Amino acid sequence: MTTVRYVPPDFSNDVLQRAPAARTVTVERDGVLPDGFFATTNLPTYVKGGDGRWSMPREPRMDGVLVRDPNGTWWVREGRRVRRGDAIVVGRAEDGSEGVLVHGAGFQADGAAHGDFHFMSSQVSREKPIDYRLIARMLVEEKRREGYVLWVTGPALVHSRARDNLVWFIRNGYVQALLAGNAVAVHDIEAAVVGTTLGMTSEGLPTENGHAAHMRAINAVRRSGSIAQAVQDGTITSGIMHACVVEDVPYVLAGSLRDDGPLPDVITDMIAAQDATRAHTVRATMAVMIATALHSIAVGNMLPAYYDDPQRGIVELPTICVDASEFLVSKLKDRGTHQAVGVVTNAQDFMSILRAAVEREVQEG
Amino acid sequence: MTTVRYVPPDFSNDVLQRAPAARTVTVERDGVLPDGFFATTNLPTYVKGGDGRWSMPREPRMDGVLVRDPNGTWWVREGRRVRRGDAIVVGRAEDGSEGVLVHGAGFQADGAAHGDFHFMSSQVSREKPIDYRLIARMLVEEKRREGYVLWVTGPALVHSRARDNLVWFIRNGYVQALLAGNAVAVHDIEAAVVGTTLGMTSEGLPTENGHAAHMRAINAVRRSGSIAQAVQDGTITSGIMHACVVEDVPYVLAGSLRDDGPLPDVITDMIAAQDATRAHTVRATMAVMIATALHSIAVGNMLPAYYDDPQRGIVELPTICVDASEFLVSKLKDRGTHQAVGVVTNAQDFMSILRAAVEREVQEG
Amino acid sequence: MTTVRYVPPDFSNDVLQRAPAARTVTVERDGVLPDGFFATTNLPTYVKGGDGRWSMPREPRMDGVLVRDPNGTWWVREGRRVRRGDAIVVGRAEDGSEGVLVHGAGFQADGAAHGDFHFMSSQVSREKPIDYRLIARMLVEEKRREGYVLWVTGPALVHSRARDNLVWFIRNGYVQALLAGNAVAVHDIEAAVVGTTLGMTSEGLPTENGHAAHMRAINAVRRSGSIAQAVQDGTITSGIMHACVVEDVPYVLAGSLRDDGPLPDVITDMIAAQDATRAHTVRATMAVMIATALHSIAVGNMLPAYYDDPQRGIVELPTICVDASEFLVSKLKDRGTHQAVGVVTNAQDFMSILRAAVEREVQEG
Amino acid sequence: MTTVRYVPPDFSNDVLQRAPAARTVTVERDGVLPDGFFATTNLPTYVKGGDGRWSMPREPRMDGVLVRDPNGTWWVREGRRVRRGDAIVVGRAEDGSEGVLVHGAGFQADGAAHGDFHFMSSQVSREKPIDYRLIARMLVEEKRREGYVLWVTGPALVHSRARDNLVWFIRNGYVQALLAGNAVAVHDIEAAVVGTTLGMTSEGLPTENGHAAHMRAINAVRRSGSIAQAVQDGTITSGIMHACVVEDVPYVLAGSLRDDGPLPDVITDMIAAQDATRAHTVRATMAVMIATALHSIAVGNMLPAYYDDPQRGIVELPTICVDASEFLVSKLKDRGTHQAVGVVTNAQDFMSILRAAVEREVQEG
Repeated sequence: MTTVRYVPPDFSNDVLQRAPAARTVTVERDGVLPDGFFATTNLPTYVKGGDGRWSMPREPRMDGVLVRDPNGTWWVREGRRVRRGDAIVVGRAEDGSEGVLVHGAGFQADGAAHGDFHFMSSQVSREKPIDYRLIARMLVEEKRREGYVLWVTGPALVHSRARDNLVWFIRNGYVQALLAGNAVAVHDIEAAVVGTTLGMTSEGLPTENGHAAHMRAINAVRRSGSIAQAVQDGTITSGIMHACVVEDVPYVLAGSLRDDGPLPDVITDMIAAQDATRAHTVRATMAVMIATALHSIAVGNMLPAYYDDPQRGIVELPTICVDASEFLVSKLKDRGTHQAVGVVTNAQDFMSILRAAVEREVQEG
Repeated sequence: MTTVRYVPPDFSNDVLQRAPAARTVTVERDGVLPDGFFATTNLPTYVKGGDGRWSMPREPRMDGVLVRDPNGTWWVREGRRVRRGDAIVVGRAEDGSEGVLVHGAGFQADGAAHGDFHFMSSQVSREKPIDYRLIARMLVEEKRREGYVLWVTGPALVHSRARDNLVWFIRNGYVQALLAGNAVAVHDIEAAVVGTTLGMTSEGLPTENGHAAHMRAINAVRRSGSIAQAVQDGTITSGIMHACVVEDVPYVLAGSLRDDGPLPDVITDMIAAQDATRAHTVRATMAVMIATALHSIAVGNMLPAYYDDPQRGIVELPTICVDASEFLVSKLKDRGTHQAVGVVTNAQDFMSILRAAVEREVQEG
Repeated sequence: MTTVRYVPPDFSNDVLQRAPAARTVTVERDGVLPDGFFATTNLPTYVKGGDGRWSMPREPRMDGVLVRDPNGTWWVREGRRVRRGDAIVVGRAEDGSEGVLVHGAGFQADGAAHGDFHFMSSQVSREKPIDYRLIARMLVEEKRREGYVLWVTGPALVHSRARDNLVWFIRNGYVQALLAGNAVAVHDIEAAVVGTTLGMTSEGLPTENGHAAHMRAINAVRRSGSIAQAVQDGTITSGIMHACVVEDVPYVLAGSLRDDGPLPDVITDMIAAQDATRAHTVRATMAVMIATALHSIAVGNMLPAYYDDPQRGIVELPTICVDASEFLVSKLKDRGTHQAVGVVTNAQDFMSILRAAVEREVQEG
Repeated sequence: MTTVRYVPPDFSNDVLQRAPAARTVTVERDGVLPDGFFATTNLPTYVKGGDGRWSMPREPRMDGVLVRDPNGTWWVREGRRVRRGDAIVVGRAEDGSEGVLVHGAGFQADGAAHGDFHFMSSQVSREKPIDYRLIARMLVEEKRREGYVLWVTGPALVHSRARDNLVWFIRNGYVQALLAGNAVAVHDIEAAVVGTTLGMTSEGLPTENGHAAHMRAINAVRRSGSIAQAVQDGTITSGIMHACVVEDVPYVLAGSLRDDGPLPDVITDMIAAQDATRAHTVRATMAVMIATALHSIAVGNMLPAYYDDPQRGIVELPTICVDASEFLVSKLKDRGTHQAVGVVTNAQDFMSILRAAVEREVQEG
């Protein structure tokens, strides 16, 4: 992870000076875009208004469109959310010549090595060292600055002793929102209620009738009515979901086709689940994604590659993606979340070393 | 793939003779199960009725419960679908001693090798030969017998020339239902409408503004109103979805959190999507799962490991799982779909060789 | 890892009583075996002598043959090492009926779960918990018992901060022999001499002219004459190889086709390298294999699955195999090293957590 | 695979004009380099002589040094091969300023897409289409031009029906040299002599005493004396090695620590094996690497990224690397073989589709 700083566009430059204002076309039918709509990216973007001023749209994400509201403010919105009468930007050029500038080149790394021939030039590899100290510092710094750190996690975190470590991060203020699916909550609660995960003991051994354990956990919560109620009535006394309820950390459990149950808290409609997720991504100042292809790519889609910090201006949004294989991280980048820094390791080992690193950082800091 | 035949339980056996009828408890609240409910597996299962007769429950799947309807017929049902007043089997024993027998040992392979020490004893490996001829024969045989073959596919099939081959299988009667997600349809339609997939040409090169291509495809279908209407009005003139519409092959497009759009045909509520999927799994006589973790595991959850064939009695339900890595197939098995036969290869290569093998089989047969 | 105990064969059993002595045929040409030779496995094996007594051959390994020496002692030997006049056992039966008994069934696990249907039944998966405490205990126990622990390592250990941890294990008496290749030593010495590994800094960044760094390290040792001399003359002052020299821990650096240099200590002839390696495998009481396909499989080939402990009799030889992907461990098993316990994680994370676990074990113990 | 053309350096440019001749230092001891030696890459390189002329060194490879022979010709040579009195280039600059120019920028791709934001920007992915037609054309073209195509293969090619296809490529003149290890030959000959590979049938089933099959194959060849003699005396009547012998295609079987046997033809000393391999890499006009990490990286180390074609001047040396996982191809690139084009698929499927594509190309062409 090299240091990256942001250099804003030079708006005095001729091309940008002479560029027309962004052209808009009016939506005729709810959820249907005009031909030639401009498709957004997650990179810093500037739109030229009728007054000749360039401004950044709010709530940026990739795969959205640019909508001008009655006050002249630009917003990035999903196509399904546009309404008849909305003014949508059209155009394809990203160099400003049609009134929209995508300024990815604004992020400039310091200290790159010279020359054409290097070993280890791949971006993601299990053979690269992991700088836990740097990640730990970032988390400690986010906490100090009152940032908004999203944790996006898959069930591998729960199958294992990583669970205790995630609880520790929640309890100590490093998690501002937990974005996950039914399985994370089910197996976490299975561990709390039955004592197994996916029917395995914590040593990884199968148990008798273990295949039913997660269903008993689901049923217990269904009986209570919700996770929060199950915490209150004493059904759930430990674990990740317990910590979220007790510490008032919001969570989004987005449903999927493979869910058993599901738990009452799971949002089964995907449109609603996306809206609930995006309510967090627009506030994010950092994202940690661990061992989940589905949720990492989903959140990556909705996550800008930068945010506007009151003190520091435009900064890159640090995105850490942890998985046992290079493939997921590469796939995440291939789906546009190019800013993701890949950590190729086992999820439970990641959690255990990161926690130790954060504890050390806090002590020393 | 060794030959497997089914040996039914010996019901004259003492334990089974003396076993009590399965005990049921009445549901008190919709969607909440009684304590100690029996959790089903995907293996051949027999329930003893009050009349002392053992019978197999209908619509088997794993992670369900056993419900007796007013006529005394047993059904496997998801917990969320039970209603106040339903009679649910309780018990944990799977050996018949509490009135439920799980008879996985009924499937017996012929011709296993003797001795303790072998090479290549792992179940799934890229180093094992793939018997395309056998898979081709199974497909040809299914067609002859008028079986019901499910194809469960991920977008890797569409990113590539595999698309033409899947169209061929649809057009020639080898596909009875297509189970996929938004992305498969989007990229297929992107190829039909814009000529790219994920913005890449068919040679894998990026195109200018290619990142918007899939959104233009989605918008085109949203304008038409549905995929079928887009086929009718000439918006979509080729590809997988086109072939399904023209050939009247049913499809389920189940939503997920990472969907762009989505297309109007996508079922965004996961409960509805599971019900739509299960309407096909209860009819399945074979399943081919290609390059999708989410949908393979989801369908695997709902798919029995066997079915009752009018001519041949209980037979194993052939389940082929194709992926570039051993991990998916192992994971599918680890989630209970133990009957899956893994093929570790590239999805597009699989399709191309399998099609050639089927064509040869048809010619020779 | 379930507890495993060994139950010797019941030699009073009829088949074994009536079995003939093992039949031998005399070798006619050096390195060429008689037709029908018996091929050994790595499992506990007994050979019946002319006197009717069953005894275990010495220096067991897979892919060898059984040779009787003039004193009537049986040895396992590689085919290339047999000499004209040697008496070689012939036969194929492994059940004792031809005088050779392979007793793999002797190892019996306690506490397996009942039932046909389980989740997580695969043997190797990133989704299984890793029991670091158990591995730590085994290492502490080996040290107490003065066992002989082989460490087989690939260069991923050196690319990263795992290097310091391996030095710690060497310095503290947990490593009785280091089996590796040229690259491990080269990159370790590159770190000592130039300060990079494969030209990367410890943060994973490329350095100017970094691709030449490993060659400068090799050249420095070639100038000194050997690694030991380079330690003595102050060229190498830290790292893995330095610790081995200082602590008198033997190492085998086996050459391979991809070696740069190589270092003067590398055994470039593979026959000589196998002999040097086997001198350690015949003494092994435990093996830890980390992030190397080539050396893990090579050592696995030469390693018995058990050894005869003076106090405890026949015990399984614990073999831990660590890799970032399930594939290597499965491959190791597929090549016959079935006793290997797989740990799917990043090598540097493994080292860091294992060291902490051993330190805790020592403190508490 | 975009079209790439080579633009030579502009030697009239000031920096290159004013650059001094490359400075050399004399070797004092065999195999020990002078401090500050220049380390070569596999990219087009020019050295300035005392006469002010820039010329390309002969037999280029990475990780070598530049030696001037008495005639003033420059050679790339491995450090271990330098001899007392040799004149070796020193310096680190690759921009010509010290008399050595590494001109990697000379290869320029046409038709790259504009803009900062793309999907699928990773270089190697199972999700990218494979252009078999292009690879087929390259092979057909190489044959027409009498090129020198190296095939570097691992045993996965032999475990499977890929064997027949490799035989077809050898028989039809598409293979100028086969670079492999003991295992490829052993399992190929096992298939010829015993009918199994690694003891499996061609359907992937284990056979009785199958673990000994490869040892019987090795023993048969050891009895004959060599592979060629075993072909002549009728021991080997089919397969890859048989085709090489009959078609007079040279092969290098480089030994490794994990070899059983080995076969008499295996070069067990790695220095000798590297020399034998390099005799082919210096002639190569194309390389196809399939399913082998060890041999792909080894050959990649010795292979230039370009060659000088009498008709076409400097051209990129096409290097195709086929593996079931992205990791190998990325690793190959990380070890400097940046020109490798990755094909992520199963080796046997690759062979079968490529053969069909070549047959079609020949028919149509």
